[in-house]
Order: sequence, then C-alpha cells, then structure tokens
Amino acid sequence: MEKFMIIGERIHCISPIIRKALAERNPDPILQRAREQIEAGADYIDVNIGPAERDGEEVMSWAVQLIQNEFDNIPLALDTVNKKAIDAGIKVYNREKGKPIINSADAGDRVEMIDLAAANDAMVIALCSKSGIPRDNDERMAYCTELLERAMSLGLEPTDILFDPLFLVIKGMQEKQVEVLEAIRMMSEMGLKTTGGLSNISNGAPKEIRPILDSALLAMAIQCGLSSAIVNPCDRRLVETIKSCDIIKGNILYADSFLEL
Amino acid sequence: MEKFMIIGERIHCISPIIRKALAERNPDPILQRAREQIEAGADYIDVNIGPAERDGEEVMSWAVQLIQNEFDNIPLALDTVNKKAIDAGIKVYNREKGKPIINSADAGDRVEMIDLAAANDAMVIALCSKSGIPRDNDERMAYCTELLERAMSLGLEPTDILFDPLFLVIKGMQEKQVEVLEAIRMMSEMGLKTTGGLSNISNGAPKEIRPILDSALLAMAIQCGLSSAIVNPCDRRLVETIKSCDIIKGNILYADSFLEL
Repeated sequence: MEKFMIIGERIHCISPIIRKALAERNPDPILQRAREQIEAGADYIDVNIGPAERDGEEVMSWAVQLIQNEFDNIPLALDTVNKKAIDAGIKVYNREKGKPIINSADAGDRVEMIDLAAANDAMVIALCSKSGIPRDNDERMAYCTELLERAMSLGLEPTDILFDPLFLVIKGMQEKQVEVLEAIRMMSEMGLKTTGGLSNISNGAPKEIRPILDSALLAMAIQCGLSSAIVNPCDRRLVETIKSCDIIKGNILYADSFLEL
Repeated sequence: MEKFMIIGERIHCISPIIRKALAERNPDPILQRAREQIEAGADYIDVNIGPAERDGEEVMSWAVQLIQNEFDNIPLALDTVNKKAIDAGIKVYNREKGKPIINSADAGDRVEMIDLAAANDAMVIALCSKSGIPRDNDERMAYCTELLERAMSLGLEPTDILFDPLFLVIKGMQEKQVEVLEAIRMMSEMGLKTTGGLSNISNGAPKEIRPILDSALLAMAIQCGLSSAIVNPCDRRLVETIKSCDIIKGNILYADSFLEL
C-alpha cells in the first residue's frame, strides 16, 4: 500500500500569528511554520486563509507562491470556503510534486467544491456531512456515495477524492467513535481514500493527554484503512505512530532507524 | 465490550533476579515486581518459573501463595511447561478475583494443557502453532479450530480460552505483521478471546523504539478485537495506549482523568 499521507494543519488563520502574517503579507511566520512541518514529515501543507471575503484571491495566490517557491514546490491543500480564492491559488500552483488539494467539499453548501476540483484536475477533501454531524453511518455513507457519484460524473478519479468521515470529539460523543472507525473501514473496502481532522477527538481535553488519545485513535484508524490525516506533524508521538503503522503494514521497509527522517 | 485485560509479564525466570529469588524462595524481588505491575494497571500477573523440572511443584505453589496473600488474591497466569507444577499451583490458588490462567497450550507437544485447564476449570492461553511459526493464517486458523474443538469437547467454555496468534518479530518478518492482525480479526469475529506476547514485534530493536512500535501494533490489534496481551505494564506508553483504546471503544467511560489509575 501507499505510505500514509500527512497533511500539516499548522498554517491556519485561527492562529493569531498566522492571521496577522496573512493580513500583512509577512512571509516569515508562514515560512517558519511550513518549514517546521516539512522537517517533521508533512507530505502536504494545508493553507487555511479563513473565508477571506475581501482579499482572498490575493492572499491565497501570495501564500501558495511564497511556500512553493521556498520549499521546492511542496504540494499544498488550499483551505477556504472562498471559491475564487481557491481558483486564484490553483492558477499559480506548481504541480511538480503533486496536485493541489481543495479543502473542502461537503454534501451541502460546499458541494460545488467537487465541481471546482473536477474543472481544475485537483484533488478534493470530501466531508461526509451535510449540515452538522451525520446522525449515523447510513447518513455518512449516503453522503459519501452522493459525493463520489457527483465527482465521477464530472470526470474526477475516485482516488483524487479524500473522504473525510468527520472525526468527533470524545467528550460527549464517546459512543460515536467506533462508528467513525467503522465508516473508515467501509470506505477503505470500497477502495476509497480517506482523511480527516483526527485531533477533533481530543478537543477540550487536557493538553498532555491530547497526543496520547490522538495517537491511539490514529493507529486504530490506520488499521481500518485511513490513508491520510490533517494533523500537526510537530506532534512527535503522532508522527512516530504513523511511521510505526506504515512499517507494520509494510508500506515502508523496516530499519532500526525508521523513526529518523 | 469488556475492558482490555493486561497480563503482566515481569515475573519471569529469564530475569536473573527473579530466577535467583525463585531458587532461594526469597519473597522480596517477586513481591516488588508484582507490586510495580499491579500499581501500573496489571489485571493478571504472569508467574513464569521456567521448566523447573526438579522442584517446580514446590516453587509454583510457593509463588502463587506468596503473591496472592500479599495482593488480595490478584489473579495469576501460571507459566511453565511443567504440568505437575501447574497442578500444584492451581491447588493452592484462590479464585476470589478470577480463575487461574494456564500459560500455555499449543497444538503440538503442549496440547494437554487444554485438558489440564478443562479438568481444573481454569482458563488457558492457546498458542495457534504446532512446531515453530505457523506458515500462514490457514495454518493459524486450523490450529485455532483444533484447540477450540478439543477444549469444547472437554467441557471448557470458549471464553475461557485466550487464543494467541503468535506475534512475530518485525526484523526479518515485516511482511507477516498484517497477517497476525488479520488472524486476530478472524478470531474476534468468531467470538473468541485473544492474547499474545505483543512485544515480540520489537525484539532486537533499539530500546527507545520498542515502546513506540509496540504501542502502534497494540492499538491496531485492539481495533482488530484483541482482548488481552501479555506485556510489561510498567511500559507507560503501552498502558496509555491501552486505556485510550478502551476509551475509544467505549469499554470504559471517558473522563479527562482517564489516564490516572
């Protein structure tokens, strides 16, 4: 199987430092976070600019070129609900190391992100939800199929879609965790690729237990076939777990030094 | 589902300290290792006295009483190929907190350990192997069925057998790891309980990577249904992983303090 794909989540406008840097077009904080994530093992870097209604096109194309120029055309996930910004980002994107990923479509208001991916030969993260949290796996799988059909009818390859089952916080939704894992297993058995914001599980949990809980869930999800995740690659325990699972599944060859980059 | 069962492996005659203590009937080193494991979360304590051909009966009954008297009848796994020693251990064993586990039967020379378990209403670890490593899962599952049938024909409940798929070292047997996980999944789907010496995977690997590799495998195995393991409960990362998986599977209720004992 293919090696697990790590999408680094740390360039996100929810961070005050990043928001400020994007607004001021200040390259340093952006490049620093990109570098840290690449050095820690990120395969893709997510670039979340928020809704960016006013200047999204300008911000996204600036950020895409900034990061790709500095880091040998590292592939990126373009993360905003602003379709024009995505369009602008793709226009300046260099595909040498991999297609851009559009983050994200869903089965509701953001379904047209699928169309945008198809029109631009891009990959797309497809959230298996419509409005809010899917009630159960019947609903998850219905959205999954709906999104898959739309994508295929527009000529997108199924392997260009990363289905996101929607990881849920454990506090208050403990009984839903097994279902999320089961959804990943079902999608994997359909031959589909999967991804997701794994650390949702530990939202609100004490800081010291987050990497522990996240890593356990990640290994269980990889056993179910999860092929990618949107995570903080600077979380050492998480990346150690990913590499170990890749070794156990035979995706990379074992050597005593396998944890070193 | 039931909480994952931790069988503590650290009272083992392969350790020079333990071997000496058993030979000299010196309680302190035995009790210290039992205490450490119980405090770290062990549900069962394995007592490996080696073949003990000369004085196995005496050693096992001494060790069983010593540990159970000190630790409120903590349940034990009696670990030796010496059947008379197991018999002697069971005679003095207090069942208040759980049946004794016989460690272990296999489909070869040690098949009669199944009979011993049936005759004594004990649990038994059943290794799915005959002589050496099973060639593939067809062989594993054939031994599993063989052992199950023998046990049931003698009146043993299937849930009193812990099937051990035989975890394998990754160095040299990397391509076999997925098969071991798959065997656990098949046995779990048959409603069987499973266990095993999980840290086999990292035999010979650098000391610092052993807990990392072991923990990743453990979470993957628990996702496949593994219900127990013979491990070092003082390996903090491993026990954190077990507790996290129990939380994710809903076997114990989530609280922010779930990692504290």
